[in-house]
Amino acid sequence: MRKVELYDTTLRDGAQTEGISYSVSDKLKIAQKLDFFGLHYIEGGWPGSNPKDLEFFKQIRKKRLKYAKICAFGSTARPHLSAQKDANLKSLLKSGAQVITLFGKSWDLHVKVVLRTSLDQNLRMILNSVKYLKKNGCMVIYDAEHFFDGARHNFDYALKTLLAAEEAGADRIVLCETNGGMITSSVVQIIRKVLPRLNTPLGIHTHNDCGMAVANTIAAVEEGCTHIQGTINGYGERCGNVDLIACIANLKLKLGLNCISDNKLQKLTELSHYVSEISNMRHKSNQPFVGESAFAHKGGVHINAMVKYPGTYEHIQPKLVGNKSRFLVSELSGRTSILLKAKELELALDKDALHTKKILKLLQDLEHRGYQFEAAEGSFELLMKKALKKHKKFFDLEGFRVIIEKTKSGKITSEAAIKLKVNKIEEHTAAEGEGPVNALDRALRKALSEFYPALAKMRLTDFKVRVLDERAGTAAKVRVLIQSQDEQDSWGTVGVHENIIEASWQALVDSVEYKLLKDKKE
Amino acid sequence: MRKVELYDTTLRDGAQTEGISYSVSDKLKIAQKLDFFGLHYIEGGWPGSNPKDLEFFKQIRKKRLKYAKICAFGSTARPHLSAQKDANLKSLLKSGAQVITLFGKSWDLHVKVVLRTSLDQNLRMILNSVKYLKKNGCMVIYDAEHFFDGARHNFDYALKTLLAAEEAGADRIVLCETNGGMITSSVVQIIRKVLPRLNTPLGIHTHNDCGMAVANTIAAVEEGCTHIQGTINGYGERCGNVDLIACIANLKLKLGLNCISDNKLQKLTELSHYVSEISNMRHKSNQPFVGESAFAHKGGVHINAMVKYPGTYEHIQPKLVGNKSRFLVSELSGRTSILLKAKELELALDKDALHTKKILKLLQDLEHRGYQFEAAEGSFELLMKKALKKHKKFFDLEGFRVIIEKTKSGKITSEAAIKLKVNKIEEHTAAEGEGPVNALDRALRKALSEFYPALAKMRLTDFKVRVLDERAGTAAKVRVLIQSQDEQDSWGTVGVHENIIEASWQALVDSVEYKLLKDKKE
Repeated sequence: MRKVELYDTTLRDGAQTEGISYSVSDKLKIAQKLDFFGLHYIEGGWPGSNPKDLEFFKQIRKKRLKYAKICAFGSTARPHLSAQKDANLKSLLKSGAQVITLFGKSWDLHVKVVLRTSLDQNLRMILNSVKYLKKNGCMVIYDAEHFFDGARHNFDYALKTLLAAEEAGADRIVLCETNGGMITSSVVQIIRKVLPRLNTPLGIHTHNDCGMAVANTIAAVEEGCTHIQGTINGYGERCGNVDLIACIANLKLKLGLNCISDNKLQKLTELSHYVSEISNMRHKSNQPFVGESAFAHKGGVHINAMVKYPGTYEHIQPKLVGNKSRFLVSELSGRTSILLKAKELELALDKDALHTKKILKLLQDLEHRGYQFEAAEGSFELLMKKALKKHKKFFDLEGFRVIIEKTKSGKITSEAAIKLKVNKIEEHTAAEGEGPVNALDRALRKALSEFYPALAKMRLTDFKVRVLDERAGTAAKVRVLIQSQDEQDSWGTVGVHENIIEASWQALVDSVEYKLLKDKKE
Repeated sequence: MRKVELYDTTLRDGAQTEGISYSVSDKLKIAQKLDFFGLHYIEGGWPGSNPKDLEFFKQIRKKRLKYAKICAFGSTARPHLSAQKDANLKSLLKSGAQVITLFGKSWDLHVKVVLRTSLDQNLRMILNSVKYLKKNGCMVIYDAEHFFDGARHNFDYALKTLLAAEEAGADRIVLCETNGGMITSSVVQIIRKVLPRLNTPLGIHTHNDCGMAVANTIAAVEEGCTHIQGTINGYGERCGNVDLIACIANLKLKLGLNCISDNKLQKLTELSHYVSEISNMRHKSNQPFVGESAFAHKGGVHINAMVKYPGTYEHIQPKLVGNKSRFLVSELSGRTSILLKAKELELALDKDALHTKKILKLLQDLEHRGYQFEAAEGSFELLMKKALKKHKKFFDLEGFRVIIEKTKSGKITSEAAIKLKVNKIEEHTAAEGEGPVNALDRALRKALSEFYPALAKMRLTDFKVRVLDERAGTAAKVRVLIQSQDEQDSWGTVGVHENIIEASWQALVDSVEYKLLKDKKE
């Protein structure tokens, strides 16, 4: 079986994502997780560009990695310097990384307007820089930046840059589709022209600006590339790098190629969640293979067919990538979905049991009142467990009061006071917040934190408010949907009320109870 | 130039997204926007499946659409029924839609285990159903569900289903990659086998389960398909349908094909935002072409090169799709849009006037802080008028206080006290409400009612809340969008703040002021 090498650049290209900023400790955590998962190369950063990256290389050397080689990234020597004198190349060597990933220019336009040097000089820079690193005993991966744009504008020159790297002894040559502007057929066409001209194993590095990064990477592998570069969840500048998660699943399950073990593939969903958590990014619910909704069925026709024959509306078995099927409970579905849900939660429930009817009735009542559970499975699970008497309260509310005040100066403040009991021990506390929901959230957690320290690990990632009866204006009932997550999972909860604070309260309490219940199970 | 037809199914397939639930009025708004944008076909829903969809078809007939044909969606007749007796086909005709999109089974497995009928009977169902609709004068688009899976398992049978639809006179035959499990090379291979066997114009309908929906659609067009089906922003069940937004941009800018005008292409970003707002979905910042970050540059090397030569790290000019470059250190923005807006509002403004620069600066500041004016034109109009000194305050706020209290019994109450001045006359009053926003709304109107009796005629019809910075949890900044209407108009207003009450207050005040200003004009 042909083997494909996986090269992760989450810690360097992924860190260019708007909103992502990794600490050294974040980077170490992600690197170790990637190694555990079985990735072959982990690009740690650009040691020449900042001290944080240097520190990472220093610390990662102390960790024992099982599978992965750590790579340091940097550019070819500056035009006016010999390789030996170039500070950037020196810092690459100093990083102690086993592998150096060196990028150079393949697009003549960039050589002229960005490097501001001659085309020949650029070739010499590539040749000498790679040679120098090879002489120093490194494995060298050569990233040909803007290769595809370069090939389209001046194929001969673009090819020469690759030949220079090959001549100097580069161990891999990676064709980079840096601007992400190529459609799949163009990528294929260019690779077909390049491949016969080189002997070095070829890699592919794509970006998602046309929404085709995954297809471009997979097509490149079909054409003969044996090394792929990407980031977990497709993080990266602009529209992101190619999502390695989808690539891995496609390589294994669609092309049948060897890149990680089947067992590790079953950790794919977990890996994706873990990295999104450390990156402080919301996990995309519709992410291919690993999203919470990736195998979720809502349409009645689809649910009906899935019950008759699993796989009618699923392209793979979700468990192969550690995900699962979900049947969304919505106006579009009926009792079948409740039974399926119960099965998913391992609750014994059969079609004609009194419990089932009770839950169905309850669900219909709640939906009639405006609850919606398809995006609030946390609340739905609690609802079923309450109906089946498999749930006990974690606390009793004695009362709360929230005050929002705005003065003439324009200053606005929010304060929440809360009194509750846990096992008959009363807690009475208060907190300020950025707004009333935040104040209430803080006061609730503050009150519960001594009893349930695990709550520190969860956070709220989104809330949505929907007016249910438009004609009632501001007096209308509103539905609040809250999304929460911890290091393992994410879950949705719901509250409905004419008072937005009460609706938020219901969803907050469900979110906290779901977390506590979940932890008890684990 | 070859022409490609655009078929939107946001209102049907898109509505299957977890978390999306459109009201009839939402659907009407989206349909009109899609028409304005220049889409050729808009699938309104499945009239046989629920009364809400029927209502949509009734109401859309009253709107004058300029470009788009409205399509009703449904399945072939039930196995045991003749087409004439099938309730589903009847309701399709009754919808009054100009185009019927009929889906039938192409995968033998589905015929056997889901329809539970014979392969021959399924062919007759397709033939008779299409014939029946054609006889009734409809344009018929035939959606061959699971065509690619069917072709892989039993090519001859899958082809026969298409030939049945063709024989019956279908106007388009659409190859559906329903489960989203095909990689691009397989899609191409299958289309190459099918295309020479048919005379009917072929369409393509893909899903994103492998992360390749866009590439698969574009490859299908390159192979000869002339009709594409998808949803705005790729909404849809599981991992979503193909994103029409990316498809349109790729068709126009990468393949140079005719599907909408260049002018309309410049509204692509606006369209994407508008539909995400109505759908109450967060707009994906890294969405190809239209995301806020799609042309945002963070890496130092990239910014440096972009300054030397624009386009070094951008695959297209962002303005072609109505987007813009952003440098994450210093924000840049276009003043043309402000001038266009001013023209729309009949405010005299020219490019170099001091006012224009002032508004531009203000707008950039506000957008940077999270304001968004696409769905809040009321607020934008006020903003411009304030900047042009064409606005005077209708009242001065002295202060307000909102108290929400929940007791042990579960009872929850909200009260707002407000003090304000109109022409130096002080009004100090209070009101209870169903929630804090309602209490504040009532108190504000109560305080103003003596001075401005016209306020009794307006009402708030919707409000939306969005968390802007997810990492901050409940302390995050939120954006509140309020929709208001009176007997003549409806208008949107916006507020942004960490405190949901303050954000609501801003939007409420804008809403009231917009109404009063509007009345003065009339």
